[in-house]
Amino acid sequence: MNLGCLYGVGLGPGDPDLVTIKAVRVLESAPVVAFFAKTGRQGNARTIAERWISATARELPLHYPVTTEIPVSDPAYNQMLRDFYEGATGMLAAELAAGRDVALLAEGDPLFYGSFMHLYVRLRERFPVTIVPGVTGMAGCWAAAGETMTWGDDIMTILPGTLPQDALVDRLRNTDAAVIMKVGRNFAKVRRALQDSGHYERAIYVERGTMSGEKVMKLSEKLDDSAPYFAIVLVAGQGRRP
Amino acid sequence: MNLGCLYGVGLGPGDPDLVTIKAVRVLESAPVVAFFAKTGRQGNARTIAERWISATARELPLHYPVTTEIPVSDPAYNQMLRDFYEGATGMLAAELAAGRDVALLAEGDPLFYGSFMHLYVRLRERFPVTIVPGVTGMAGCWAAAGETMTWGDDIMTILPGTLPQDALVDRLRNTDAAVIMKVGRNFAKVRRALQDSGHYERAIYVERGTMSGEKVMKLSEKLDDSAPYFAIVLVAGQGRRP
Repeated sequence: MNLGCLYGVGLGPGDPDLVTIKAVRVLESAPVVAFFAKTGRQGNARTIAERWISATARELPLHYPVTTEIPVSDPAYNQMLRDFYEGATGMLAAELAAGRDVALLAEGDPLFYGSFMHLYVRLRERFPVTIVPGVTGMAGCWAAAGETMTWGDDIMTILPGTLPQDALVDRLRNTDAAVIMKVGRNFAKVRRALQDSGHYERAIYVERGTMSGEKVMKLSEKLDDSAPYFAIVLVAGQGRRP
Repeated sequence: MNLGCLYGVGLGPGDPDLVTIKAVRVLESAPVVAFFAKTGRQGNARTIAERWISATARELPLHYPVTTEIPVSDPAYNQMLRDFYEGATGMLAAELAAGRDVALLAEGDPLFYGSFMHLYVRLRERFPVTIVPGVTGMAGCWAAAGETMTWGDDIMTILPGTLPQDALVDRLRNTDAAVIMKVGRNFAKVRRALQDSGHYERAIYVERGTMSGEKVMKLSEKLDDSAPYFAIVLVAGQGRRP
């Protein structure tokens, strides 16, 4: 029997029109569509893909056992996630072994901070895989902000807000452009790191970029320190420009 | 009279199917389609957009006066480019002022190392602008290579190969994942920087990612030092993974 193909389908930053033609073709033809979601939620990826999924597709939701209820440093978190990814791998492997293609949805790009990768590395030796790259969440945010991110020979550094403050300051001092991801609970620390590294005045805060409820403002004009997990801070480069 | 809108249309890494739905809609309806190209060439952006441009659109090619014939450090280069961008700005402004929308094509993403930005910063105060973000060239390359670029709290650094070797080594030592752009003439230096920073064995070389003639190989298995300008080297992160 022929094996099914695993498609890692990048869905872009949130606006369903920022899905690629290739992703639409996969979604229209895949007999099985799998996606990650919080228990009780549909999940962002499934929401973006809504209008493109075939009416005859079988949906396979993969519900995270935990998201932010347990700190990631807790060994129990790691064990639960490992069990979850192993279980999801088994479910997808059964479909693929039966010859059915599976489209596994990924917000943004599948190979850039995505849950997709946890199943991909477990399945790629056994089954054919096609990666459909997507517009990253950060590119959606800088488009929403209209920020010219990198010019000429600019260096760009992408930093998770989870890093210690000293590490953030050090990396920010050694780059021309920066994107700080996972701002959420790290907001106050991220703000201090930008102040200490001299980038504060040109930092831009973006929430829900390209989606309804989008917010774009100068970080210095955002007075409170509360932000959703996926909020992003941008520092645009200022390199060579004739 | 109403002003026309300038659309910065990201076209993705090269495969025409990696254009977004939103980009296709703009290309199908824009009365004027402008694009950068080397003199005598159609240019990559125009090639990617080929099948999506309206048959009734007027095309406005913007031919670079120089590309690699003069070093970028030469003041004459800067002056020629400035004159060119000013001229192109004038041409687009005339269309926009006459009420016609203009789609200005951009390979990859418009705000990430793109020529689009040189016109955008000159026009955005006078005319409405919509940015259509695109799949970056680097995301096309890492999809082609199947490289899992960033996990968990990984830092990613994007480096132009034009940087001095010491700067490359320093930045490579302080990152988890890296993308080195503009490899071309800088190939031998990039290779040495990866050797000196300890990333050489996992570096991947990608040429023409997602396009015909695509090449993907371990950098250590590429024996010669010749590469096109747009070749990319990838170093994948190895962060937290349950």
